[in-house]
Amino acid sequence: MSADPSPSHANPAASPLSYEQAGVDYALIDPLKVSAQRAAAATAVQLRAHGFSEVAASRGESAYVVDVGPFYLASIVECLGSKAIVADEMAALTGRSWYDAIAQDTIAMAVNDLITVGATPLVVQAYWAAGGSDWFADTARAQALVEGWRRACERCGVAWGGGETPALAGIVEPGRIDLAASCTGIVNPKQRLSVGDRLGPGDAIVLLDSSGIHANGLSLARKLVERLPRGWLTEVESGLSYGAALLAPTVLYSPVTEALWQSGITPHYCANITGHGWRKLLRHEKALTYRIRALPPLPPVLRFIQQHAGHDDHEAYSTLNMGAGFALFVAAADAERTVAIARAQGVGARVAGQVEAGAKQLLIEPLGLSFGDDALQLR
Amino acid sequence: MSADPSPSHANPAASPLSYEQAGVDYALIDPLKVSAQRAAAATAVQLRAHGFSEVAASRGESAYVVDVGPFYLASIVECLGSKAIVADEMAALTGRSWYDAIAQDTIAMAVNDLITVGATPLVVQAYWAAGGSDWFADTARAQALVEGWRRACERCGVAWGGGETPALAGIVEPGRIDLAASCTGIVNPKQRLSVGDRLGPGDAIVLLDSSGIHANGLSLARKLVERLPRGWLTEVESGLSYGAALLAPTVLYSPVTEALWQSGITPHYCANITGHGWRKLLRHEKALTYRIRALPPLPPVLRFIQQHAGHDDHEAYSTLNMGAGFALFVAAADAERTVAIARAQGVGARVAGQVEAGAKQLLIEPLGLSFGDDALQLR
Repeated sequence: MSADPSPSHANPAASPLSYEQAGVDYALIDPLKVSAQRAAAATAVQLRAHGFSEVAASRGESAYVVDVGPFYLASIVECLGSKAIVADEMAALTGRSWYDAIAQDTIAMAVNDLITVGATPLVVQAYWAAGGSDWFADTARAQALVEGWRRACERCGVAWGGGETPALAGIVEPGRIDLAASCTGIVNPKQRLSVGDRLGPGDAIVLLDSSGIHANGLSLARKLVERLPRGWLTEVESGLSYGAALLAPTVLYSPVTEALWQSGITPHYCANITGHGWRKLLRHEKALTYRIRALPPLPPVLRFIQQHAGHDDHEAYSTLNMGAGFALFVAAADAERTVAIARAQGVGARVAGQVEAGAKQLLIEPLGLSFGDDALQLR
Repeated sequence: MSADPSPSHANPAASPLSYEQAGVDYALIDPLKVSAQRAAAATAVQLRAHGFSEVAASRGESAYVVDVGPFYLASIVECLGSKAIVADEMAALTGRSWYDAIAQDTIAMAVNDLITVGATPLVVQAYWAAGGSDWFADTARAQALVEGWRRACERCGVAWGGGETPALAGIVEPGRIDLAASCTGIVNPKQRLSVGDRLGPGDAIVLLDSSGIHANGLSLARKLVERLPRGWLTEVESGLSYGAALLAPTVLYSPVTEALWQSGITPHYCANITGHGWRKLLRHEKALTYRIRALPPLPPVLRFIQQHAGHDDHEAYSTLNMGAGFALFVAAADAERTVAIARAQGVGARVAGQVEAGAKQLLIEPLGLSFGDDALQLR
């Protein structure tokens, strides 16, 4: 319908770009995941010999929880994914390192998952696997990584315990680095545990703002750049390049969850909104309806991706965080105070909706969207 | 001097193969390590806000330890390194998967480090980063990985909490996988902590046997294969190929350390013998002399590597485990019982020497070798 006979990048809606086209095929990965989950679940009995037991409800949640007596122990390992490639390409174009930003992303991937179960993160370990010893010869980049990592640890109140910095020529691509983090924390006192048993009708849904794409959907974002007239330097808004916008570091949400506890608010459940976008609101297995009445502001880079990838709202909210990086399910009476506490920590927040009795579904009313029980299969 | 005018692979001693030639240049990695260690140490104060503190003596040790009140918390992340490439090459030659073996190696890298501080490993998380979704399409290989991982967890008495299985096209090489593991445990009761404060003159050095190369020195081993007439299938002894010998899985030592505790023996110090070979016996910063009087049996594959890489004993013991995978420093009165307890767990062991007052050095008397204070710089 356009009068402009331009190449596909100027009219991207004519040829939508799916997540599978972007190179991640969950149909191949998921059978292994299921097999690994079953084998992992069978190992829980090992804890008995030590006098401990797992919190079985944490299987399928974002962090694994063990009852060690005086408190619960939570642990996790998470990786950054392909965002390091964006940092590398932007470094080549801008002459500065973006590794301070992606260091924060990597820690956020681990910490934001760990806190969903009510844990206070205590220790982060770094896993930086480079494509060869020469990766470390770029001292400015290496220093940005160290400095960004340290600052993110400080923001989260965790100790950086150490880590591993292998040179893995032949496994990691030359010039690249595989960044991951493990995080260990405790749920203390035990009543902070949030694995969903208190989640129920009447709970308010408080959404915490994201800063942009965070660290999920980057395969799509990278594929999309091929369609853009100026590539990474295409502006998503005046003065802000696509590459720089993508590299806005993920918000660290642990200061919010810690401040909530100190104010006497224990979320009934939490969901870190990462892969699968808003479908993560359906994470808990309970049959409940999640009704959204207010949307967070949409970061320009996500609006830009949706538009240029030719995604309708259903696909966009299925894939990207669309402005909401973390969901807190709290007692309705705590909702407004939860918002105020988050904002006091510098994190945008709003009461976005509520939990209701009913079929398992997510209703995003302002957009007329619904997602059913089959929208998310994580267990 | 040889009468045989053969190519270099038949007379490798004529052109020794150094570790640097094998592609790992610590001179490039170490400045980042030092910078990261300093930044990490500065984050320890963060624990105060939670009412906790680090065990400062664990900085520079193999696992990081935090005092959380009723016990100590220990955590670590470790990677397999390039051994997966050997498994891939042997799979192509033999038609079977070797991923059950390298799954155990990966867990051993984490668990054997964690136990050095006196911790009981409780939870392992899997980090399996593949070069693309298609890696997971080889279900026999994926299943071997899952099964080997599960069995190793059972052997160590740990729960497999979960993990991350990203497809990292563009970061991990196509067809390859980056395997790592994080491990969390507790030191309970606190008097099990072994960070070296009780290490001193008169202690016996008990060495636990290795099964082969374990998971360090693989860059060298892979480089060496280029010199071998039949490559990976060259026999190191009758009926045992070089590739298969390399893929003997790393011994898991946690059953030994747990059995020691149950028998009332608390090691004064432990060293996991990985990279840097026997120099790891010099790990603790105290000025002490470590005198070795008896050597463990040398696995044929290590004898083979030493011979074909043209390494003298000094270089071989500086690089490879040479038959000793783990060192326990125990009170002299506990030495023989320590050996018996290890053997009862199916792990070969011997009283190999003793700790003496004197300059910081390692003396391997049967070979006339000595390593001084400058042989190992880890802090």
